[in-house]
Amino acid sequence: MIKVIAFDADDTLWVNEPFFREAEEEFASLMEVFMPRHSIIKEVYQTEIDNLDKYGYGIKGFILSMIQTALRISDHKIPVTFIDKILQIGYDMMEKPVELLPGVEDVLDYLKDDFRLVMATKGDLVDQEKKLKKSGLDHYFHHIEIMSEKKNADFAKLIRHLDVEPEEFVMMGNSLKSDILPVLELGGHAIHIPFHTTWEYERIEYEVAHDNFYQAKHIAEVVSMIRLM
Amino acid sequence: MIKVIAFDADDTLWVNEPFFREAEEEFASLMEVFMPRHSIIKEVYQTEIDNLDKYGYGIKGFILSMIQTALRISDHKIPVTFIDKILQIGYDMMEKPVELLPGVEDVLDYLKDDFRLVMATKGDLVDQEKKLKKSGLDHYFHHIEIMSEKKNADFAKLIRHLDVEPEEFVMMGNSLKSDILPVLELGGHAIHIPFHTTWEYERIEYEVAHDNFYQAKHIAEVVSMIRLM
Repeated sequence: MIKVIAFDADDTLWVNEPFFREAEEEFASLMEVFMPRHSIIKEVYQTEIDNLDKYGYGIKGFILSMIQTALRISDHKIPVTFIDKILQIGYDMMEKPVELLPGVEDVLDYLKDDFRLVMATKGDLVDQEKKLKKSGLDHYFHHIEIMSEKKNADFAKLIRHLDVEPEEFVMMGNSLKSDILPVLELGGHAIHIPFHTTWEYERIEYEVAHDNFYQAKHIAEVVSMIRLM
Repeated sequence: MIKVIAFDADDTLWVNEPFFREAEEEFASLMEVFMPRHSIIKEVYQTEIDNLDKYGYGIKGFILSMIQTALRISDHKIPVTFIDKILQIGYDMMEKPVELLPGVEDVLDYLKDDFRLVMATKGDLVDQEKKLKKSGLDHYFHHIEIMSEKKNADFAKLIRHLDVEPEEFVMMGNSLKSDILPVLELGGHAIHIPFHTTWEYERIEYEVAHDNFYQAKHIAEVVSMIRLM
């Protein structure tokens, strides 16, 4: 019954969120003469959220949000060389190797002949294309969708574009908010594969209960789950 | 014979490059105590080009390139408040209204029933989606492709994705380098509609001569050109 299997990328196929957390820690180390570390991290998070409409997701927007936060929380008392250090934190993030999560390649290889595999990821076009290239996973995917948002309308458009019915579509990912709930609401199937670190913005507090909802501890479990759908 | 008509967006459907030129002039005004204006503009251009691999096209990368240039050409002598001013130049660019070029909507309206219309634009996902939304042109397009590059391989992928042959595809745009040459090389048709301002990076020096190449002074001319293909 399932025709298309869509995979989130960051923290589903490869490690991502920990690099942002590391970068925040470096930023906190730079700025801790002005404020306690946990407050710095709160401030930069708030700036990021406030800037989402303007900058979207991704490293460039994150760098700009760190710069803006540094100016604000220091009351413009930072030396201008701090700006270089913040730019450097961003460059370092872009240069990180892509670290595939365990089992990912086996699962893609196992499923690729029986289903159309799609990568559906939120983020910056340049960041995500670079990671995909570094990952070596490109050839498994029939279609790559880099989305500025993952809301109901975005998934509805993707499913229409793939020319399948929602019930023929399954999405898997680590974010209940972005990967799971919108797809369930549209009548699709969704598999949640939690990752140890979730960005605060993606966290939701309630339990999901739905006939089309599945929970996996590890990506390897999806192989048998999909056969049951 | 033509099935798909693809339109470049920036400076083909709406005004874009002049906003970047204006922003450069504002940046030059901010920095001119350190260097003559024309040198500042050269420096920021060089930084942008050097950063293309890292940042791609779009406003966020341009802001980061202005910041990096300001630090370098002032030898870190700028007051930190200059950074706010540079961020502000970027925000102002994002807030610009979208100004459609004359005739655009009439042409789209005229062609929409007989052809599949596609928008194929290079740039940042957030920037381009915002402009498309502000433009009100969204409903004319069967497909929107926001590309990180417009090289042969990118167009080959788009044409394959649209499930047409190259000779059934026509691309129109203001950049010979990005909109015209790759499509001609693939066997497609291309219409060049020059815009009064071309970003230096997009300029090429030679004349194009090719059976599938057309030159229009105004977008309204494409309506009759397409009937001849």
